[in-house]
Amino acid sequence: MKGFGSDNHSGIHPVMLQAMIDGNSDHVPSYGTDRYSEKTAVQFQDLFASPVDTYFVYNGTAANVLSLQAAMERFESVLCSDVSHLHIDECGAPEFFAGKIQTLPSKNGKIIFSEIEKYLIRKGDQHYSQPRVISITQPTELGTCYSLDEIQEISLLAKKHGLFLHIDGARISNAIHYLNTTFKTMVTDKGVDIVSFGGTKNGFAFGEAVVILNKELKKDFKFIRKQAAQLPSKSRFIAQQFSAYLKDETYLKIAAHSLKMAELLHHELAKVCLLTDLIKITQPRQSNAVFAILPKKMIKALRENFFFYVWNESTTECRLMTSWDTKPEEVHEFILQLKNLI
Amino acid sequence: MKGFGSDNHSGIHPVMLQAMIDGNSDHVPSYGTDRYSEKTAVQFQDLFASPVDTYFVYNGTAANVLSLQAAMERFESVLCSDVSHLHIDECGAPEFFAGKIQTLPSKNGKIIFSEIEKYLIRKGDQHYSQPRVISITQPTELGTCYSLDEIQEISLLAKKHGLFLHIDGARISNAIHYLNTTFKTMVTDKGVDIVSFGGTKNGFAFGEAVVILNKELKKDFKFIRKQAAQLPSKSRFIAQQFSAYLKDETYLKIAAHSLKMAELLHHELAKVCLLTDLIKITQPRQSNAVFAILPKKMIKALRENFFFYVWNESTTECRLMTSWDTKPEEVHEFILQLKNLI
Amino acid sequence: MKGFGSDNHSGIHPVMLQAMIDGNSDHVPSYGTDRYSEKTAVQFQDLFASPVDTYFVYNGTAANVLSLQAAMERFESVLCSDVSHLHIDECGAPEFFAGKIQTLPSKNGKIIFSEIEKYLIRKGDQHYSQPRVISITQPTELGTCYSLDEIQEISLLAKKHGLFLHIDGARISNAIHYLNTTFKTMVTDKGVDIVSFGGTKNGFAFGEAVVILNKELKKDFKFIRKQAAQLPSKSRFIAQQFSAYLKDETYLKIAAHSLKMAELLHHELAKVCLLTDLIKITQPRQSNAVFAILPKKMIKALRENFFFYVWNESTTECRLMTSWDTKPEEVHEFILQLKNLI
Amino acid sequence: MKGFGSDNHSGIHPVMLQAMIDGNSDHVPSYGTDRYSEKTAVQFQDLFASPVDTYFVYNGTAANVLSLQAAMERFESVLCSDVSHLHIDECGAPEFFAGKIQTLPSKNGKIIFSEIEKYLIRKGDQHYSQPRVISITQPTELGTCYSLDEIQEISLLAKKHGLFLHIDGARISNAIHYLNTTFKTMVTDKGVDIVSFGGTKNGFAFGEAVVILNKELKKDFKFIRKQAAQLPSKSRFIAQQFSAYLKDETYLKIAAHSLKMAELLHHELAKVCLLTDLIKITQPRQSNAVFAILPKKMIKALRENFFFYVWNESTTECRLMTSWDTKPEEVHEFILQLKNLI
Repeated sequence: MKGFGSDNHSGIHPVMLQAMIDGNSDHVPSYGTDRYSEKTAVQFQDLFASPVDTYFVYNGTAANVLSLQAAMERFESVLCSDVSHLHIDECGAPEFFAGKIQTLPSKNGKIIFSEIEKYLIRKGDQHYSQPRVISITQPTELGTCYSLDEIQEISLLAKKHGLFLHIDGARISNAIHYLNTTFKTMVTDKGVDIVSFGGTKNGFAFGEAVVILNKELKKDFKFIRKQAAQLPSKSRFIAQQFSAYLKDETYLKIAAHSLKMAELLHHELAKVCLLTDLIKITQPRQSNAVFAILPKKMIKALRENFFFYVWNESTTECRLMTSWDTKPEEVHEFILQLKNLI
Repeated sequence: MKGFGSDNHSGIHPVMLQAMIDGNSDHVPSYGTDRYSEKTAVQFQDLFASPVDTYFVYNGTAANVLSLQAAMERFESVLCSDVSHLHIDECGAPEFFAGKIQTLPSKNGKIIFSEIEKYLIRKGDQHYSQPRVISITQPTELGTCYSLDEIQEISLLAKKHGLFLHIDGARISNAIHYLNTTFKTMVTDKGVDIVSFGGTKNGFAFGEAVVILNKELKKDFKFIRKQAAQLPSKSRFIAQQFSAYLKDETYLKIAAHSLKMAELLHHELAKVCLLTDLIKITQPRQSNAVFAILPKKMIKALRENFFFYVWNESTTECRLMTSWDTKPEEVHEFILQLKNLI
Repeated sequence: MKGFGSDNHSGIHPVMLQAMIDGNSDHVPSYGTDRYSEKTAVQFQDLFASPVDTYFVYNGTAANVLSLQAAMERFESVLCSDVSHLHIDECGAPEFFAGKIQTLPSKNGKIIFSEIEKYLIRKGDQHYSQPRVISITQPTELGTCYSLDEIQEISLLAKKHGLFLHIDGARISNAIHYLNTTFKTMVTDKGVDIVSFGGTKNGFAFGEAVVILNKELKKDFKFIRKQAAQLPSKSRFIAQQFSAYLKDETYLKIAAHSLKMAELLHHELAKVCLLTDLIKITQPRQSNAVFAILPKKMIKALRENFFFYVWNESTTECRLMTSWDTKPEEVHEFILQLKNLI
Repeated sequence: MKGFGSDNHSGIHPVMLQAMIDGNSDHVPSYGTDRYSEKTAVQFQDLFASPVDTYFVYNGTAANVLSLQAAMERFESVLCSDVSHLHIDECGAPEFFAGKIQTLPSKNGKIIFSEIEKYLIRKGDQHYSQPRVISITQPTELGTCYSLDEIQEISLLAKKHGLFLHIDGARISNAIHYLNTTFKTMVTDKGVDIVSFGGTKNGFAFGEAVVILNKELKKDFKFIRKQAAQLPSKSRFIAQQFSAYLKDETYLKIAAHSLKMAELLHHELAKVCLLTDLIKITQPRQSNAVFAILPKKMIKALRENFFFYVWNESTTECRLMTSWDTKPEEVHEFILQLKNLI
């Protein structure tokens, strides 16, 4: 019986595992110059409908902080939400690799748009670390998605002020599926400059990609990556996983399943909410997570069979996350056990 | 037909691939708290006959620079050989993560012992970055091994001066096999403080381990690793590879094969040297590499079928490296083609 | 006619200038080993009634960031107010030298005490940059002072959680005077660990001191300072200024004058407020600054003769700062011109 | 009786002291926007016969490391001599602020020109930290000067390979005097990109300047300086010292005196050498320092009255350094005491 802890508690998706095995033949050059890496780079260009540069790195922290390092000087700042992974869960990695973090107030995980310009008024003042990047998470840490219009709006503001726009996309395919859109529409056409493109949480053994859309940012990336200890030697194994993930819209199929399971969980949980005031759904469901307040006693009992995280210790808001391998019967069993606790 | 470019041009060894597949079941906690990681940690303690702490990271650069970061303040220095990977091939990663590099003269890739103390005379002088770590590579970049006595000698000097001793062991199992010794004897008993324990070059898809023997160094390592973007989320897949590698002396079997192939290559090449003055073996063969001067013309012709690196452009000294999957017939074919070029 | 821009718009106080001249004889060793530096170090020990270690640095930014660097690892965090100089006006220097900044909500420039513990709940979690230092500014950027009880309360909380307490004391003598206390009572007895002790804003040509009260923090400070490019070669000239500043309670006399001028300004401004609703005093006056909302039109007119800063562009809250050399007639003339603008 | 320890053992030259006093009037804006700083900036442009940008910093370490930070990315390298202050005496500051140091072999303190290109062959290789700056010291740590032709040669090589050329000029005026040249000829016309222009060792209380000749390097310097804690608040006092130093060729007069004293010392010492084989002059005298091997016994006795540094503990090579305030009678007395020890 699997839990709802995180999509990185799952293993390797069979398609990606097979891709690694298929790439496991003979000798190929290391450090990204192999034929697998080259082929996958073209697939990314097709996906974004743009001559993007793609660099593989090992994990999501790396994809994020190296994206930032490429986009800002270390005396500059990145604007991000006050609940962003960058600020809360990276143990100071952005400050170590890139520069200063300036947190902005948020609602349902999304930066409040009208707050952004307040941080841009001290332009040119040498005492004030100058904002250079806006980083948004799509979907957010609270399972919500910026709409296409919201991304457009932020992007235009960024351009107006000479800032770069970064997407932390550890689960970006889920947003593509939820918004029923494409990478071209949501990213390329909106003028996003650089993307952390997630693999691990979507069925990979390991591996993420930094996708650079803005040519200004790519000049030195290979040196940045190497110095940061993120140049994979047997890069073919990340390349092969991404190749399989992008081929035949596998990324959409995996996203579709995860979101369907979250939808089922949300639907069933909403029905439970009708039975008791003790349980409350707290965030709009727009990805593969459901957030709900559960009573402490129930949390304890439920976690004996289904692991999940308490997101906010003071409100006991919990995060229930589905994965590529979540099964409907697991959702139903969880709901059943929950009902028995009322 | 495989070349002699590097042992990281090879793919995943079947034993390690199977181990990954075996670990690919259901959900387990991420970030190193899974049962696979815990089991493998015990195997490392058995291997070193010591209550070592083991931390998985993604690659060799990371294992090296995080070992150093754990052992030194950023205003301090690491002493290493002037041909060390740390100084030559890490694009400034040690300076970025850890601190200053002070290079020492070397012979056949090994630090010249009598030179070390010259760098220790300005103790306490605030203007002089204080040496805190000696880092040796075992086997070295030139395929040679420090003897057990040499390691002992360096370790005693390090302790005398309050320095830590680090081993860059990207291919450390090869040295264990060559010296016909054990990790206990070569590392633990010699008082080595911290080791970069290689996986990738020995048949892994990816993954290395930082093995901390000195308790003083482990206090904050988990934070250092996380901030450095080296905390693997699905850590079970590195753990499983190491578990299989250490089990039933797989590491020795792999090393034995690589070294046997290098021995064959060395033996056959020595015979060719008797036929012509144009080819010269340049380094003692003590690991899975053979170094030899080849004429430019031959290099060009040979590399059409067998890739290998020219180590020194001015002397045309070349590095021929064998791997876990090198076959005798590949060595013989290479020698045959070489002979045809004389 | 001098303005109310900042106390660092003023020049060198005659007492400190004479001290520099008195120290300008013959040759003395450089880098802090001269007799002047040694003598002044003893004066600091007397001032704090404690065997403190004192290190001279060039400016306030350096005193702050090197204090933090001494107290925290770079993967750790400092907690400070959201209006602190550290966060707002140091162009990312704390992140560059020390580590992550975690801002806390504030009132009148002071950290809201009840908020602190919320940032301490993820203790030991490798994903969350662990708080290690609380930094308070005394007096604050808004000219207010923490009371002795408030400092005690914060210090006890810090100790309870294993955190260090730092005071950014660019104008710390002003707080001593306002609270009618001593450095022993306000700092030493409260268990403060490290202090940035200001010189420049109190009549020096240049120079600040890092005063280390907690022995744990001093181990490597001389190397930290040197690597940070803050080791003064002709340190006697900072030493001599501090020596004169501490001798015969000069620091209190200078503080007394500045605060008296601010009191006069506050008193006169309060009278003007009775005449019009357009002007409002916004912060308690507890140091050498008066904060007030002035109408835009008046600001423009007044600044033709008296420079001062608009602190908040949206509310037009202004900061009027007095200095060691502010004269009563300058205050009166300013008030007169202000009245004429009503 | 003054020693020959260092030119930073001396105090403030009367001309610079008077300049500080003259600037000590009333209030002026801080952080470099005062009229004194603006005037001095123009003097620098006149001196270099070029629209240079000048930024004041506190000390020589800062001038050096911020020059490098402006010229290189942190994954790049600076090439400098193996006896350079940057490598030997900055406690890792260049690695902390700027990037990697690659040391080159030297003779009499000067980089051996023919060695430089060896470090430039791995252009574009992501594993090899790419050289971006050549830094020379003029005069060198061993009191020698690069000739105008040598600077030209290095500069052309730098340009050919896309590198910047930096001069560590803590005593640069001494080189100008020794070579009987001008800043225009030695620096501007040779295509030097950025200079650390020394003040402290030439009679200042404190203060150095970074002079940027290459427009490419100046874009962000004000932010680099601020984040590095090197933005002087009362900048007028550095500005005034430089203004006086540059006015009426004061810099040449001070250099002339120091070098004349070194010449006298060299001349007298050469005569002593004729009397004994135990004393040997070891470096050409081309600045304000004389290097000589003295027997250990003599060193001990001499240092009772005249402090100086033993440069090389194993050879007992000593550095005797003159200053703006060295008197002929001090030289004669030193020689007399030396003779008495033979």
